[in-house]
Amino acid sequence: MDGINNLKYDHFIEKFGNVVEHCPIIAAVVWAARPFPSFADLFDRFSTVIDSLSMEMKAGILRCHPDLAGRLAATGQLTPESMGEQRAAGLLDLSPSETVTMATRNDQYKAKFGFPFVVCARENKKAAILSGLEDRLLHSVDEEVQLGIDQVKNIVRLRLQDLVNMADARL
Amino acid sequence: MDGINNLKYDHFIEKFGNVVEHCPIIAAVVWAARPFPSFADLFDRFSTVIDSLSMEMKAGILRCHPDLAGRLAATGQLTPESMGEQRAAGLLDLSPSETVTMATRNDQYKAKFGFPFVVCARENKKAAILSGLEDRLLHSVDEEVQLGIDQVKNIVRLRLQDLVNMADARL
Repeated sequence: MDGINNLKYDHFIEKFGNVVEHCPIIAAVVWAARPFPSFADLFDRFSTVIDSLSMEMKAGILRCHPDLAGRLAATGQLTPESMGEQRAAGLLDLSPSETVTMATRNDQYKAKFGFPFVVCARENKKAAILSGLEDRLLHSVDEEVQLGIDQVKNIVRLRLQDLVNMADARL
Repeated sequence: MDGINNLKYDHFIEKFGNVVEHCPIIAAVVWAARPFPSFADLFDRFSTVIDSLSMEMKAGILRCHPDLAGRLAATGQLTPESMGEQRAAGLLDLSPSETVTMATRNDQYKAKFGFPFVVCARENKKAAILSGLEDRLLHSVDEEVQLGIDQVKNIVRLRLQDLVNMADARL
């Protein structure tokens, strides 16, 4: 972890700023807790900061995520991390009817909850995501904030693993 | 305020996402409180969301701000909002000795507090900023978090005014 613990603030944010999608403030808070004895400790800090937020801020984090197979994907405006994750799940390669189903359910979900459906795409395939979206539409807002945040933490763990592995490979 | 209240989420974030520097999550939380009866109400929402954060999150907001007359200014990497503000205060046009003084005090400030010195540049000129930086170095961390956040809210108010005036001008 020496390479990471020795990063200057600006470089830490360049590297980890988008571990929570479009929320560099979380990495900015985590940075204050350096040094990180282990990968587990680094992840734990992200997780703890996220858990400490109010429900409205957790919903705000979810709102910073793009729709799955949505407008930003179609127009090539996803962050590199999101694009890789949506591609891995097969979401950038939907059939026309799957595209319509996904868009309809995303819209229903956002209309009900006020934030987009967030799922860790690398741990799911498109069929599971489509059926999961249907199931999660039945939940309460509070349940979906918590389920969405659990998925955010899975996304964070995988993004961190990639970045730490890249740093190790350079040593 | 109709133009603003009718904005779709993505457009709201495109417009107001950087009202708090590099913290679109704050605009994402504010969005949930729409419609906004007045400009005062819109500003008040930003202010309330910021005030509701923990000290570590407030320090995180400060850490998302660039150094005044710092590396990002020198290399043209400021956000357009920050560049305009720093230019208005005369901070992009320092003499060599002022540049050294500013850099030295910025570094002392960050070493003591763990976040950069934040001041509303549009409400100050470079001489006042340089002497203010020296005075604020004497404070405690808690005092500086609160003073920095008060400055963030001044920055937010002026950025919001610009954006709302631009929207009005287009009607």
